[in-house]
Amino acid sequence: MSVTSRDILDMNAFHGDGDDPLVARRLASMGAASTLFFERPIEMVSAQGAEMTAADGTVFLDLYNNVPSVGHSHPRVVGAVQDQVARLNTNSRYLSAVTEAYSERLLATVPVPDARIAYTCSGSEANDLALRIARLSTGKRGVVVTEAAYHGNTAAVTEVSPVSYRQGGVPDHVRLIPPPGPAYGNDIAGGFASALRAAIAGLEADGHGFAAFLCDSIFSSDGVFAFDWSALVAAAEVTRTAGGFYIADEVQPGFGRTGRGLWAVAAAGAVPDILTMGKPMGNGFPMAAMVARADLLARFAEAFGYFNTFAGNPVAAAAGSAVLDVIEDEGLIANAAAVGARLKDGLTALDSPVIGAVRGCGLYLGVDIVAGDAPDPDGATRLINALRGRRIMVGAAGRFGHTLKIRPPLCLSAEQADRFLGVFAELTVGPA
Amino acid sequence: MSVTSRDILDMNAFHGDGDDPLVARRLASMGAASTLFFERPIEMVSAQGAEMTAADGTVFLDLYNNVPSVGHSHPRVVGAVQDQVARLNTNSRYLSAVTEAYSERLLATVPVPDARIAYTCSGSEANDLALRIARLSTGKRGVVVTEAAYHGNTAAVTEVSPVSYRQGGVPDHVRLIPPPGPAYGNDIAGGFASALRAAIAGLEADGHGFAAFLCDSIFSSDGVFAFDWSALVAAAEVTRTAGGFYIADEVQPGFGRTGRGLWAVAAAGAVPDILTMGKPMGNGFPMAAMVARADLLARFAEAFGYFNTFAGNPVAAAAGSAVLDVIEDEGLIANAAAVGARLKDGLTALDSPVIGAVRGCGLYLGVDIVAGDAPDPDGATRLINALRGRRIMVGAAGRFGHTLKIRPPLCLSAEQADRFLGVFAELTVGPA
Repeated sequence: MSVTSRDILDMNAFHGDGDDPLVARRLASMGAASTLFFERPIEMVSAQGAEMTAADGTVFLDLYNNVPSVGHSHPRVVGAVQDQVARLNTNSRYLSAVTEAYSERLLATVPVPDARIAYTCSGSEANDLALRIARLSTGKRGVVVTEAAYHGNTAAVTEVSPVSYRQGGVPDHVRLIPPPGPAYGNDIAGGFASALRAAIAGLEADGHGFAAFLCDSIFSSDGVFAFDWSALVAAAEVTRTAGGFYIADEVQPGFGRTGRGLWAVAAAGAVPDILTMGKPMGNGFPMAAMVARADLLARFAEAFGYFNTFAGNPVAAAAGSAVLDVIEDEGLIANAAAVGARLKDGLTALDSPVIGAVRGCGLYLGVDIVAGDAPDPDGATRLINALRGRRIMVGAAGRFGHTLKIRPPLCLSAEQADRFLGVFAELTVGPA
Repeated sequence: MSVTSRDILDMNAFHGDGDDPLVARRLASMGAASTLFFERPIEMVSAQGAEMTAADGTVFLDLYNNVPSVGHSHPRVVGAVQDQVARLNTNSRYLSAVTEAYSERLLATVPVPDARIAYTCSGSEANDLALRIARLSTGKRGVVVTEAAYHGNTAAVTEVSPVSYRQGGVPDHVRLIPPPGPAYGNDIAGGFASALRAAIAGLEADGHGFAAFLCDSIFSSDGVFAFDWSALVAAAEVTRTAGGFYIADEVQPGFGRTGRGLWAVAAAGAVPDILTMGKPMGNGFPMAAMVARADLLARFAEAFGYFNTFAGNPVAAAAGSAVLDVIEDEGLIANAAAVGARLKDGLTALDSPVIGAVRGCGLYLGVDIVAGDAPDPDGATRLINALRGRRIMVGAAGRFGHTLKIRPPLCLSAEQADRFLGVFAELTVGPA
């Protein structure tokens, strides 16, 4: 299997061989819309904590799924959903004590000045709305993102998601810069700021103007870059000076994953104009949100009616509240920091010719798989499937698809981390 | 309060007066993103069947909400969600017997030839994807919609939703035609087809080309037009002849609301290339889907990676399966036909100077409120708030915002319909 930079979005997605009757049924109903993990796809039937159980009884250690972030089927989130769905599940045009309380609690955590919340169903919808607001308020169209960015699946956010293109590339009003990493040498923050400044100048020279710098605070699909978060502060400054808006995409790093508070952008000390969140927000209940400066939202509401049927409903709010409760009560941010450091130290200590750089923070790590000095996406794919054979699930990311992406539920224990490290060492270094 | 064609999307949305402490809290957290029903917003705490209960104990008859379509808090849907959310709630990259079975069952109902399903979180995402597919396959950009159409809230589908514009209007590559109604005189289908043909010619003359005819099969936001469904057959033929794709938006009319089978477009005898569905699909659990010809989906997958994190998860599939069970086992399509006819006959029989045309079918009715011969949106707003005072909830729609929109849960009983008719007669005709 050949993996290029265009396949990152689906690089762990196979269509199966069709011999599996359930795979055949999947293909007959979902066709080209189906993507399945692993060369031998897995039928899952249940999950708890950081483990998922297949139909044949096999239990997999889950180091991939960042949606069930407080743990699969967490009883407090499950209970909150079960209780609320039996009582009231309706739209946000009625007042609901559950939703009002959740909004206030969430808003108090977010590092956007004078912020207001617009709920959506998905991170894609949140980023789509954020771009509309930035474009309306600036009257400009140009957006700068990183070179292997992913910001969602609508028409508008696909344009700013270079990894989604299998043919051609992003339109001219979208400019790409490398993520803050080795590409910039010793001055990562300065280099990143200069690259952003140049990209903005290009947008202006070509008549698009500059609307927004849109940035996943941990650069997930770029391959997990958290070298120098002062790059975010520098980029925010460049963005503001140029008259654009800084949209912090916290769909992946948000809700404690980095082990440094709820929001990575806040940990970095940067102040966005708009912040988007999603995936782990309801621990699997479909919900997301955009938080924006009140003045930007008000300007948007003058120009457009906006309503989102399912968004901000009481069941979502109940799930979201339970997620915040569990993060606090179970100390999951501290756990992400501690177990993440244990994993990162363990991976860094491995002496294997196939392991390149180890990056990331908290429970979002990237491990480059290399052949000599070159990225080895085929090797990464083989490792992913070999780990699957040892009942451990990880994914891949990065511009070349050679970066193993390790982002388990935040409740991962030290023992589970060690189990992964042991198996990974066997596969990359050899038998102990 | 003045209501123009630009306010339809929010014409029942007020911000409240701020004296209500919960309204004040809402405004502080959601700001301009908040829209609330009624001059005096309601805090809801629970709901069952076609009734919703406010925090002060008042029970409202719900003739507005088309999302909890099999009835608020239906025990079978609630039970299915409660059971599945406790066991497994994960993405569709694993096989899941629940999702595979639901996909097959759903697909068997849909009137798209050689169809495959792509799950999404919202009807907006489904329509956004449908437009991308139509544009990619035609290489053209132009879309024709009806003059007060609403197809969702992303950047791309807002462009084809004229009612969402409060300033300015749709872009030049979107052309508007009146819905199939009195605007076309005696030959509604012929007139609608001619208007579509002219719009397509305009798109081609102006260099946009023609990608899709996108049409809500019951023209909900246009004011509920179901005069002559042969108009859909004629429009499909015009669309195909012109080399475009017919996208049937069944987000509102789908899942039995019209009382004529699950899909209005099928009842009309028209065959779309793409069909989108949403709102009632999970009775409030956030889920939606796009069903497209397999070849169109395959062509799209060659060009773009597409994945939707929450979509098609086992909890959604469980909710969706329960919805189909209830529709079948409780005979809700027949109930929609019978109770809808009772409502429509009752409304048509009312002799009131403020009631104009009564339109629609099944449990989706539109009632024009007029002053003399003129649309009276202020009168419609007064009626909505007067009905709220009598513990009955309805909404409004239409190009001028003067059409009462009646679309209760499909379980509405004859007695509940009669209660509404009695109160409505008192308010529009006078005491009995």
